[in-house]
Order: sequence, then C-alpha cells, then structure tokens
Amino acid sequence: MKFSERTLIEEILAPLANPADGSLGLTDDAAFIACAPGRDLVVTQDTLIGSVHFRDQDPAAAIARKSLRVNLSDLAAKGAEPVAYLLSLALPDGVERAWAEDFAAGLRRDQDEFGVALYGGDTVRSPGHVMVTVTACGTVPSGKMIRRAGARAGELIYVSGTIGDGAFGLAALNGGTPAIDALDARARDELAGRFLIPRPRLELAPALRAHASAAMDISDGLAGDLALLAAASRVTAEVDLGRVPLSPPAARAIAAEPDLLIRAVTGGDDYEIVCTVPEGRASAFEAAAGAAGIAVSRIGVVTGGGGPPVFRDSAGRPVRFEQASFSHF
Amino acid sequence: MKFSERTLIEEILAPLANPADGSLGLTDDAAFIACAPGRDLVVTQDTLIGSVHFRDQDPAAAIARKSLRVNLSDLAAKGAEPVAYLLSLALPDGVERAWAEDFAAGLRRDQDEFGVALYGGDTVRSPGHVMVTVTACGTVPSGKMIRRAGARAGELIYVSGTIGDGAFGLAALNGGTPAIDALDARARDELAGRFLIPRPRLELAPALRAHASAAMDISDGLAGDLALLAAASRVTAEVDLGRVPLSPPAARAIAAEPDLLIRAVTGGDDYEIVCTVPEGRASAFEAAAGAAGIAVSRIGVVTGGGGPPVFRDSAGRPVRFEQASFSHF
Repeated sequence: MKFSERTLIEEILAPLANPADGSLGLTDDAAFIACAPGRDLVVTQDTLIGSVHFRDQDPAAAIARKSLRVNLSDLAAKGAEPVAYLLSLALPDGVERAWAEDFAAGLRRDQDEFGVALYGGDTVRSPGHVMVTVTACGTVPSGKMIRRAGARAGELIYVSGTIGDGAFGLAALNGGTPAIDALDARARDELAGRFLIPRPRLELAPALRAHASAAMDISDGLAGDLALLAAASRVTAEVDLGRVPLSPPAARAIAAEPDLLIRAVTGGDDYEIVCTVPEGRASAFEAAAGAAGIAVSRIGVVTGGGGPPVFRDSAGRPVRFEQASFSHF
Repeated sequence: MKFSERTLIEEILAPLANPADGSLGLTDDAAFIACAPGRDLVVTQDTLIGSVHFRDQDPAAAIARKSLRVNLSDLAAKGAEPVAYLLSLALPDGVERAWAEDFAAGLRRDQDEFGVALYGGDTVRSPGHVMVTVTACGTVPSGKMIRRAGARAGELIYVSGTIGDGAFGLAALNGGTPAIDALDARARDELAGRFLIPRPRLELAPALRAHASAAMDISDGLAGDLALLAAASRVTAEVDLGRVPLSPPAARAIAAEPDLLIRAVTGGDDYEIVCTVPEGRASAFEAAAGAAGIAVSRIGVVTGGGGPPVFRDSAGRPVRFEQASFSHF
C-alpha cells in the first residue's frame, strides 16, 4: 500500500462511520449495538477474494458494493432490517490511495441507499489479492428470523426478480459463450451489472416476515440453493422451468441457445430470494411484494419426500443437471 | 482443498455450533442472537493471514486459537462477556482434511475454555495463504462498554500480565536475536507459546467495568497502544519503564541485552490489557483483579496535555522509540 494504515482508517474509512453511534467513529477496538427490546440481532458474514469472487481488475467501488450487498442479501432473505456492518479489508502492497477512495465511495453510496453504517473491522496487508470480509448486522422481531427450514408440502415456491443474470453477466465479462457474446452491448452491460453489483431485496423483508414459511437468498444457483432449503425443511420441490423469470437479455440468449437455461438455474450470483408461501397467503404475499416494488414469480410447489427438487421442461419432462450449484472446492 | 466445502461445513465446523442456539447448527445463511434487556451487544472483527500474522507452518490449532483469542482479547478489554463468533475461513487448494480437523479442534478447546460458540461465517477458496476472519460478539450492561476515551489526568495506568513476551516469542521462533537465542529451550518455548496462543484476559472484564475509566488490549505494542488510548482521551501519560512487568524469560533476555526492553514495550502480540483507573479506585481494582486471578501492575500515571506518552528509565530520563508500534503498512 502506498499510504499508511492510519490514513486508510482515519481519512478513508472513518468518514463511513457515525461518531454518534456505537461505532464510536472507528476510534475504538470494538463497537456496540444497543438492542431494542423485542428484537433479535441477525448476523451474517461473507468473504470475497480477488481472482475467486471478483476479478482483480473490477472497479474498486463495485468490489466494495458487491461485498456489502451479498451480506445485505442474506439479511433480506432472513426478513431482517440492516443496522450495521463490519469490514475487514486486506490490501496488497501496490494499491493506490485512489483505489481505496473509490472503494469507500462505493460503500458510501450503498450505505446511503440501504440505511446501514460502518461500525468497525480491521485493515491488514494482503500478501496476494484484495480480500474483503463483511459482517452485516440487522434486526428482526424476536424469534421471527425466516429460516431455510419451515417449508411444508403444498406450499408455493416464489423467486424475486429474474434468475440467471449474474451467471450470464460473468459470461458476458469473460466472453466465450456465443449466445451471450452475440447480444448487443447494452444487453451485455446490463447482465454484467447484475454480476458486479447485485441487488439485495431488502424491500421484500416485511413481506417475507408476514407470509413466508422459509427463505434464502440465491447465491450459488437456484437449483442448488432450493435443494438446500428443501433439505433443511425435510421436503422436496417441483419447479416448472417455464415459470422461472428471465430478464429480456437472458431470455434472448436462451432463445438462441436453449441449453443456457440450465446455466441460468444452476449458475451463481443471482442474489434473488427464493421462498415458500402457504397457498392461502399467496395473494397477500404477492400484493405485499408488489406494494414494495419487488417482482415475485411463482415457479413451483413444495412436495413431500426427499431428494433434490425436480425441474420440469415445457413438456413436463424432468431436466437433469450435472452440477446443481456453484461450489468453491 | 482435498475435501469438499460441504464436508468442511457439515463434518468439521458444524460440530462447533449448537443447533439449539441462534447458530441453527450452521444450517442457515445467518444466525440470530437474542438480546437480553439492558444489555448492549459488543462486536469486534480481526483478520489473520498466513505469512503476515502467523507463519504458514504454524500448527493449525494454534492459528485457530490465536484467531479466536485476539478477538476475545478485544471483548475482554471492552469489559464484555463473550457469546458467539463468526468464522470466515479461506483455505488454499493443498490443505488436507487433517489440517482442517486440527483447526477445528483448536477452536473446540478454546470455545469450551472461554464459553463462546460458533454461530456462522463463510468458507472460501484462497488463491494464496490461509486467511481467517473472526467476528466476536459479546455483551455488556447497556452503555457500559469500556472505551479508549475516558482516561483523565491523575489516574493510574495498569497493565495485566507481562509485556513483551509476544514479540520475544516471535523472535524466539525466527531466531537471530542473540539474547533470546541464548535462552534455554524451555524459556524460548514459553515465549513462543505466548506469541502463538495469546491469553485473552476475560476474567478481568468485571473489574474493568467496575473500576476502569478507559481500556484497550495491547496488540501492537504497549507504547503505541497507550498512545492511542491517551489520544482518544485527549491526555498523555508518564510510564516508569522499571515498573513494566516482565516474565522471567523476558527479564533474563533483557538483562543480557538491555535494549530489548524497547522491543518489549514497542513489539506487538502481547494481548494484555492496558487501562486507567482513578486513584480512589486503585485498591478496589487491584483486589478485584487479584480475586479474578489476573496479575495487574501499575506502570504510570495519566497526565494532562498532549503528545505521545513518555517512558522514563530508572534514572528518570525519557526514552525515545524509533517506532512506537507495529504497523501493517
């Protein structure tokens, strides 16, 4: 690093903290969070590493925003309202001050958008790539965190937004997938933006708390993550592939290369929410999501028994996936 | 890695979590912590990276324990009682399952000793060294977190335990410091043990809450960390170097090479606590610390004005340090 640790903390990161809250303006070794009566704290932590989770050449602000957003996405899926985050930032020697300032600017932008503030963390030297660990803290009414476990046979399965854009966006950035490379520049940029800067669906949290029996965010692919939700709930699921919501660019790529639909439902980085809702609450859930401005699509139904969820094509035939989700190793 | 992410989570890490608490046995994307009325949550986060904070060849259990302990040390200094921790573990490709099991065994041992449990986190592939980020969560009575700011002129300065063992332990492991190399093997092992596995002074937390006006743990050297505490409190300090408590091996090394006293007070990795106590509470603080089984030593006094603390030798002469504390960059 071409600037001191003290400069990084005092000049670049401390302005992201509010000295009047429990962060103490990053002037102490720990932070405190006052707990409101009747609330539980919800905590989640994700690490992103250059060359693994993002490309080293990605814009610093995008890396920062993705690091925060993937954690906010977990809070959203759990029905929590964000309060604070901790940031551990490991930077290799060559990083310029302008890079760090761009990183902080990305955090500032998202803090303001999502109503969350920096409370603390750590700054260290990295012997290799940039590494970012964010711990996000939110709150829910006591006992009301929405879990993976809780889905019951007969309930309906919903997803927010559109599926596959994150995986297609990575493909657009990397090149080499003809049907994606053939899209116009604007469509490729739209997909890339979904990969670089996912959208945590925090607006959906109240609707989830009110109506969902189980929920999780989709970070490693719809097929694999729905399988995790079903397994935690000791049920399985039937999904109608034709109902999986697609963005216009993703739909165009799949129209040109139908097998890409498999990549859409098994690729990672969607950061949409998959949830289950009792049939009697479906219209209320849809209305609440609509009022919150989040599109939700009913894609299938929870069924009894075990095994991975079955995805059926337009002819009703089950589709097999070689690998249901992204795995780090 | 030579085993799957699922194996790591389900077989190696999940046994460190209690399915009956807010960790949900690591089966979900987030954890919840129920907040007791009248308590604040205290959160702190530290990242340790192979080749920077520990040596790649250090035992896995020691890396795990140090990663947890440096965070518990922060909680201790803030007067907090530990509850939970989150762990992000980044492992390079070559790591064997036995290494991960040894890592988990180290965590298990310290969880049991310090009364804390794993609540969640992340597992990722590292393109380089092992990297560990721990977020520790504790509680204090509302508004009672002990801060760096709070020291007043005329108060007494105390440290727990002994100073310099961490830095001397690193020197013992690395070799090249004649007075430390000349110690017998048992003394070098004792020092190395202090570097590898620091001792968080959690037993001191109640005495700090009852009597200390300011406190922090000493991670980057007594001189530098006391300077941070004094600056946060808008005061400065006078320290009598002859009162700085030394372990027998450290004292022997310094007797052979007096300049090593400077390294003792400027080297990192002590994980002792420095705190300030009003004179009228000094005997009560000493009694409370003694009852908790933690040695505390009065090393100086808080004084008005600014600038870095002054350390005086036995003749009362101020001693200058080229660098008051360890800096990552």
